[in-house]
Amino acid sequence: MVEVRKPISVTEAVKRVMANQKNGETELISLFESNGRYLSQSIKATYDVPRFDRSSYDGFAIRSIDTINLSSGKSKSFKVIDEIGAGQVCKRQVGAYEAVRIMTGAMLPSDCDAVVMFEVANEFKDNNQSYIRLNHIIEKGANLSFKGEDIKEGCILVEEGTKINPGIVALLATFGYKSVPVAKKPVIGVFATGTELLEVDEPLEEGKIRNSNAYMVMAQIERAGGIPIYFGKLADVLDESYIAIKEKLSMVDSLITTGGVSVGDYDLLPDIYKKLGATVLFNKIAMRPGSVTTVAHLNGKMLYGLSGNPSACYVGFELFVRPYIRKFLFSKKPHLQKIVATLGEDFLTPNHFTRFFRSTIEFHSDKVFTFPSGLDKSNMVSSLAFANSLTILPGNKEGYKKGDKVEVLLLEDETGSEWP
Amino acid sequence: MVEVRKPISVTEAVKRVMANQKNGETELISLFESNGRYLSQSIKATYDVPRFDRSSYDGFAIRSIDTINLSSGKSKSFKVIDEIGAGQVCKRQVGAYEAVRIMTGAMLPSDCDAVVMFEVANEFKDNNQSYIRLNHIIEKGANLSFKGEDIKEGCILVEEGTKINPGIVALLATFGYKSVPVAKKPVIGVFATGTELLEVDEPLEEGKIRNSNAYMVMAQIERAGGIPIYFGKLADVLDESYIAIKEKLSMVDSLITTGGVSVGDYDLLPDIYKKLGATVLFNKIAMRPGSVTTVAHLNGKMLYGLSGNPSACYVGFELFVRPYIRKFLFSKKPHLQKIVATLGEDFLTPNHFTRFFRSTIEFHSDKVFTFPSGLDKSNMVSSLAFANSLTILPGNKEGYKKGDKVEVLLLEDETGSEWP
Repeated sequence: MVEVRKPISVTEAVKRVMANQKNGETELISLFESNGRYLSQSIKATYDVPRFDRSSYDGFAIRSIDTINLSSGKSKSFKVIDEIGAGQVCKRQVGAYEAVRIMTGAMLPSDCDAVVMFEVANEFKDNNQSYIRLNHIIEKGANLSFKGEDIKEGCILVEEGTKINPGIVALLATFGYKSVPVAKKPVIGVFATGTELLEVDEPLEEGKIRNSNAYMVMAQIERAGGIPIYFGKLADVLDESYIAIKEKLSMVDSLITTGGVSVGDYDLLPDIYKKLGATVLFNKIAMRPGSVTTVAHLNGKMLYGLSGNPSACYVGFELFVRPYIRKFLFSKKPHLQKIVATLGEDFLTPNHFTRFFRSTIEFHSDKVFTFPSGLDKSNMVSSLAFANSLTILPGNKEGYKKGDKVEVLLLEDETGSEWP
Repeated sequence: MVEVRKPISVTEAVKRVMANQKNGETELISLFESNGRYLSQSIKATYDVPRFDRSSYDGFAIRSIDTINLSSGKSKSFKVIDEIGAGQVCKRQVGAYEAVRIMTGAMLPSDCDAVVMFEVANEFKDNNQSYIRLNHIIEKGANLSFKGEDIKEGCILVEEGTKINPGIVALLATFGYKSVPVAKKPVIGVFATGTELLEVDEPLEEGKIRNSNAYMVMAQIERAGGIPIYFGKLADVLDESYIAIKEKLSMVDSLITTGGVSVGDYDLLPDIYKKLGATVLFNKIAMRPGSVTTVAHLNGKMLYGLSGNPSACYVGFELFVRPYIRKFLFSKKPHLQKIVATLGEDFLTPNHFTRFFRSTIEFHSDKVFTFPSGLDKSNMVSSLAFANSLTILPGNKEGYKKGDKVEVLLLEDETGSEWP
């Protein structure tokens, strides 16, 4: 007879998973390899940036006080007494109506307080001596970057858990992080279940389908920031499967199986979790697709029983596995970013459960719209290929109309959220 | 004396770069390694999906015609004559008031045309024979997925140039792509210029700054889909630099230098391009930051002279290098996606040139807003760390006000655009 399972809400399910959250370990890697990794420690400024007042442009450093009486009718020549490139330091004293030729990024001579750009300096030579001729007031601080203007020593530059992007790489380089403390990637094992599954290189057979879930989930693990290991297919036999899972679990930080969690006669995962002594957090969620998603916990490791249905498997991963991985990577916003969008099409079928449909968000004028990314039956592999989001339709009796405002989870975004 | 350069528009500059666009080569890689790579060939469906009508749920396959007279007052028993798991095929003939126990994904027996879910089938046993009892009409096609419903044989599933994501991995697995045709990653060399630069592991020195641009650009190359090679720092000496560039150019698909393109006295790149015999596409653009960005072309390779200023370097890369790399990766939308957003802050300074400021887009209600991601002076490294977009402010006399609608380029998005 069929086991009756009591569904819990999606929010409750996410909470039960995250009650077991933990941060991973730190490893030091080369700055060259750091792009795309997650910081395991906050990065602080070890000095002011810029470290010294410097020129923002190629030009001439002067004393602004020498220009206060200048105008188009009253110009004045300044003698160019020195020349400094970036990285060089002026050793001359700069007096009244004197100037120093200065390159972008070079340190401002201590007597000067402004820079005049080449383009307006009217340079000329007289007897092999360079001069510039100015005919307007140059304000104090003109064309300069000031010490500490960008970053003050001691301030936190980037928080732990942040994904390192090219801008952060620039910061790390600026502050001398030749090696960077990042989170070790969690290793997540993947088993597929189901005698109906053919491997990708097996010839097609009547009644059978190719295993796409395991490959898909491995790519999702990578996108989330983990390292996937594929352990192949579990047989539909309890003892064999139990032994395989028990053995492989010791090699990974968490384990995912796809399929075998339903109430079907060949769905062995519930019995395997029992035999392992794992605590089942839930085995039924009030959502479509993915209502049979089962999550268990054993000795600090998560056991994810995702649905064998591709879309349910996909959604189950993003809701319950991704945040666990991101937390492992020290993220403070481990869940998918949730935004509001305008529904681009009618969804008139009433839903008892909360529905998550694979969607493509589009930007029109300054508004965000969400459209189904394919036919939205839960077995539709093609809808996953073009999904950049999951649109949430809470259960109701009337369905939803084009133009309704709905919540959307972004799949390819690094902002994240603290939801639920 | 100072060379006078005539600025061209950003659009014209992008066009001149893309006039030299070319696709790269194809390589076959394992499906396991394909996530995140770019397809170099379109992928077609080699058969219908599903390949056969199949059950969407665990339940009982029946003939819907046997239920047309049923109602809550008029129920009927169906004899369960066979049982098939996913991957198995029913070999029995199914007659009137007979049913086959069927698992999710299993092929529908040829005599049947609907499935009744376990939950409503009222299963019972009599004399060791299973029966179900139905008391309502089951419509033809209920709880089935039909042959070809998801994907029709022969249709293009995913176009060349698309970045492979987890959903596409699932499609590739479904269609037996054990190896996947992807674009070879272009190899892009990077030189830094400037005696003022210290390497990341050198101690700080008066007047000098750490080289952050080269590391940043390498991360940008990776994000765009290329392979960066760092060639170190060029000396501020013409002959040495010329020889180094000429030698390394043979090892890469394109070459980037940061710094040395201004009209400063130590800016050697213009002379090096001349000596190499490269065609300079432009050396001045009507934009801020990055107006001195110089791009040259030699024997099918691009020579990018990006500004030494970090923000100008960053913007120059995203506008002129990224689309070239993406085209190499077969993309049909190689440029950053351009959307419209509402400006979140005043920008009252008039601009003669088009300004690109580093921005963070935020979603509020169903609208998109853009905010500066830090102090927006062109030397501000910290503003780059949190930028997820570049906001475009075309030159005008009044500046821009909070609430104005402006165009924004998305940095972390795979949608892309055909702009300009």
